[in-house]
Amino acid sequence: MNQFTINILGCGSAKPSTRHYPSCTVLNVRENLYMVDCGEGAQMQMQRQKLRFNRLNHIFLTHLHGDHVFGLPGLLSTLSLLKREGTVTIHTFADGIRVLRDIIRYFSPILTYDLVFNEISPGTDLIYEDRHITVRTIPLKHRLPCVGYIFEEKQKPRHLIGQMADFHQVPIAVRKDIIQGADFIKSDGTVIPNSMLTTAPSHSASYAHIGDTSFIPKMADKIGPVDLLYHESTYLTADLHDAAGRGHSTAAQAATMAEMCGAGQLLLGHYSSRYKDLSLFLNEAREIFPNTILGFEGMSVPLI
Amino acid sequence: MNQFTINILGCGSAKPSTRHYPSCTVLNVRENLYMVDCGEGAQMQMQRQKLRFNRLNHIFLTHLHGDHVFGLPGLLSTLSLLKREGTVTIHTFADGIRVLRDIIRYFSPILTYDLVFNEISPGTDLIYEDRHITVRTIPLKHRLPCVGYIFEEKQKPRHLIGQMADFHQVPIAVRKDIIQGADFIKSDGTVIPNSMLTTAPSHSASYAHIGDTSFIPKMADKIGPVDLLYHESTYLTADLHDAAGRGHSTAAQAATMAEMCGAGQLLLGHYSSRYKDLSLFLNEAREIFPNTILGFEGMSVPLI
Repeated sequence: MNQFTINILGCGSAKPSTRHYPSCTVLNVRENLYMVDCGEGAQMQMQRQKLRFNRLNHIFLTHLHGDHVFGLPGLLSTLSLLKREGTVTIHTFADGIRVLRDIIRYFSPILTYDLVFNEISPGTDLIYEDRHITVRTIPLKHRLPCVGYIFEEKQKPRHLIGQMADFHQVPIAVRKDIIQGADFIKSDGTVIPNSMLTTAPSHSASYAHIGDTSFIPKMADKIGPVDLLYHESTYLTADLHDAAGRGHSTAAQAATMAEMCGAGQLLLGHYSSRYKDLSLFLNEAREIFPNTILGFEGMSVPLI
Repeated sequence: MNQFTINILGCGSAKPSTRHYPSCTVLNVRENLYMVDCGEGAQMQMQRQKLRFNRLNHIFLTHLHGDHVFGLPGLLSTLSLLKREGTVTIHTFADGIRVLRDIIRYFSPILTYDLVFNEISPGTDLIYEDRHITVRTIPLKHRLPCVGYIFEEKQKPRHLIGQMADFHQVPIAVRKDIIQGADFIKSDGTVIPNSMLTTAPSHSASYAHIGDTSFIPKMADKIGPVDLLYHESTYLTADLHDAAGRGHSTAAQAATMAEMCGAGQLLLGHYSSRYKDLSLFLNEAREIFPNTILGFEGMSVPLI
């Protein structure tokens, strides 16, 4: 069982097609679900992919174009029909809060759970953290305010070397401090350095969700060497002019960004409906960044 | 090629399932499409069923519950992305006009076509007619204002008996009056009665779309002997209590209505997600009204 997976619910762009759903991605971090964008059909796709509604507590919107938002009224209404309790938080701009609140008030005036809005701005910011992860925004360049999100697992506890801990008679109660990095001080004052008792913690995984956006080279520094970079690739280089004009990127630009920020792997998506053969995207990106994969609906990509 | 078909795009109820889409039906009358309700996913279903977006000019909403409406923002936005021209009319209550207008204004401020709202009231009324059909509303009884719709083909021209018309030397220019029922008056004043020149017109088909609603016996008179009655059947008789409490009907009640109004055929739909085996609906209805069919997504039911 992977502890951090990226599930693709929709990787089409605005014009619908029978091949793709509009944008929706769900991160599963130790059975806590975090949704990024909520295109039409997201709730059906969650069911098809067996992602449990009661595990979804946070929805992060990149921007307020319909193909990233129109699944939200139905999903929020369904959570209430399912008698969902607790809190569901939507992270979006002030505008989104206003317009979504109006829709929900009309169509779902009584919810069984607390719907909370967390207002974000189109800047760089730590907007959320919990026990497992932090979420930062990155400003993108689209036809209206838009942000990307970087999800990072917090540093994990170090691994205790059981035999060494037993040899030095480290009490059970103290071991939780040891795995956080503390040295062990024996009753006679002897210090056993942490490095003798533990090994390095497991890797903390990181995922950057970058879309919709024009290609912005300087963004690479802000993203950094994430394990998995999702970068929108609406167009192929042959249609670079359309990409630039409409605030989108090409597969080659997505690959260039992956290369520049030192990502472990690149995941493509948000394909324009004009292309029938997606292998063209893969080929174009792999020439620049070989470790590229094509996103498709139903896919689950493990990070660790 | 049938000239009047009913296409089922979604026949589930509010709670989504992997088996059904929420409510959406598209009538195809001589390649003019009329949509009744627009649940989430309607635009994808239109594409799957090869129903052409540029043939859709009218959308009739039965009521303003999300599972009948949430596909509309995406569909209207898509029509504009496809550079649709002309006029698209949404028939709904004043409330619906207000809330939908706000959503469209925010997410699709510039449309390539004219979006027109026709305000209806929850009464009985002729709300629309064109060259081919008339549309009347029927008040239903649900948890909020709700109407059914009756679509009726206008009376068609009579069939000219070519040999008789030639024998009596009916001029070509006059024949259009003859097929509308006029007698032919020869130059010598002799009257050739229409019945000698024509045979009865083809049948004018009629379809009633009844849902969501409690069972209301007196509605039968208003519906009359339509060729095809769609009547919601959210529940089985075993759950009659839920049907009554939630403003819905059972399969047996739908069948009773079909029997009472003298419908030619009954089409069931709007099944609660609690039932896995839909044949139970069919069996329950057929005991009362044998000519019953189960609606399912992708189905196209010819009327004539």
